[in-house]
Amino acid sequence: MLVTTVDTTGRAAARRRPDEVVVEEPLTIQLNDVTVATTMRTPGHDFELAVGFCHAEGLLGGAPVTAVRYCAAAPASATEFNVVTVTAPAAPPPAPRLGTTTSSCGWCGSDATLALAGRLAPIPGASAPAVAVLAGIADAVRPLQALFSATGAVHAAATFAADGRVLLVREDVGRHNAVDKVVGRMLLDGQLPAGALGLFVSGRASFELVAKAWAAGFAAMVSVSAPTALAVETARRAGLLLAGFGRGTALNVYAPERLPAS
Amino acid sequence: MLVTTVDTTGRAAARRRPDEVVVEEPLTIQLNDVTVATTMRTPGHDFELAVGFCHAEGLLGGAPVTAVRYCAAAPASATEFNVVTVTAPAAPPPAPRLGTTTSSCGWCGSDATLALAGRLAPIPGASAPAVAVLAGIADAVRPLQALFSATGAVHAAATFAADGRVLLVREDVGRHNAVDKVVGRMLLDGQLPAGALGLFVSGRASFELVAKAWAAGFAAMVSVSAPTALAVETARRAGLLLAGFGRGTALNVYAPERLPAS
Repeated sequence: MLVTTVDTTGRAAARRRPDEVVVEEPLTIQLNDVTVATTMRTPGHDFELAVGFCHAEGLLGGAPVTAVRYCAAAPASATEFNVVTVTAPAAPPPAPRLGTTTSSCGWCGSDATLALAGRLAPIPGASAPAVAVLAGIADAVRPLQALFSATGAVHAAATFAADGRVLLVREDVGRHNAVDKVVGRMLLDGQLPAGALGLFVSGRASFELVAKAWAAGFAAMVSVSAPTALAVETARRAGLLLAGFGRGTALNVYAPERLPAS
Repeated sequence: MLVTTVDTTGRAAARRRPDEVVVEEPLTIQLNDVTVATTMRTPGHDFELAVGFCHAEGLLGGAPVTAVRYCAAAPASATEFNVVTVTAPAAPPPAPRLGTTTSSCGWCGSDATLALAGRLAPIPGASAPAVAVLAGIADAVRPLQALFSATGAVHAAATFAADGRVLLVREDVGRHNAVDKVVGRMLLDGQLPAGALGLFVSGRASFELVAKAWAAGFAAMVSVSAPTALAVETARRAGLLLAGFGRGTALNVYAPERLPAS
């Protein structure tokens, strides 16, 4: 794509040059042929994204995934790559979430955390990675963010081991999608719950990202930037070590109960 | 909230200190008593957010808003501030968007752009702000991002005039919410379409943000970071000047058709 760079004089100094621009396309996710979401995503790892989304939203109810497929058996056009159907016959029927009339006066953030606690057990006390590993993980993942290096417009999620090795990196225009892709890959590989592994996310730690980390059973979550108050409350209830603003030599810990003693 | 800052030795050098953490709470948005969305947002400017969301999603169909209210006439608990009902009797009935069974093979990004073009006219050729204004807007807005200064965890949206004056700034944990708050304020003030004004957004320019800018009729949109390919395609169809990576003295222009001649 051609990009025009102009200076503030607006003169003919303007240059046009090729530039990498990240792709964003809608993916419709179906569970047992019922549409459960349409998300704008960076194409690639679509099966992981669809499976990870269903897992994180609690739609599978623990049911095994028996198939994942694009809309058509042999996709012939771009749009046929924009619908993924997850098959998990034992999963409960998805409930419509929008368009309903409600008479209640809503819910609060703590209710949302309590709702998670209703379907997710606290994360077992696996040892979280050491502080030095947590503080250095952003620097370790950065060279692996290939799409970010090319475009500057995508988020990343990554898993890492207690020794600091980065195991899996996924990038997407949406932060939630990047986490779903990571979690979906692990589910398809039979690697959930995540146990002693940590989850890294670029950007902030929101409630929804912590909820996904809880559902996957990570021992720790590190974000580049700050968490929200509800993210901290949720991490504490989950037993998830939540840290942010890692700067190589130090980091902020927001839910420190799981800090290694060392 | 107490935050623990630790160094990589994990020693007792750890300090606990108070820190500002941004609040994130669910807001359920109803249109004519039908729930159309629940979004995690930073409380404040909730009426603007609800109205802006309904406008940007095309749910109002041009119908005037006759009332905006919290769930209860006199909210007495936190949750009663987490439901906002927009009343616009002439608006079409909201259609459920999830939980439906579909037999089609999905849609692509261009379809999404075409769908917008079906309900939105191209933005009239109002003069966009000059390049010097566009390039400097991020620096102009930055001192006004009060919540970001305190927490480092929120996005901002702002409107600005052709002379560079920043007119309205809204912050939220969600980028879409920040834009909805800005647009909702303008709608409530009878200031839509936005005409010669520009819209600034922190972070990237995604399809959905460009769609909201189009619906509001801005002449230009500047993002701190890069746009997606679909955002560029959509801006071109809208007649919206789209720019990013403003650095004070230069910026990238992705949909340059509307660049001022100067």
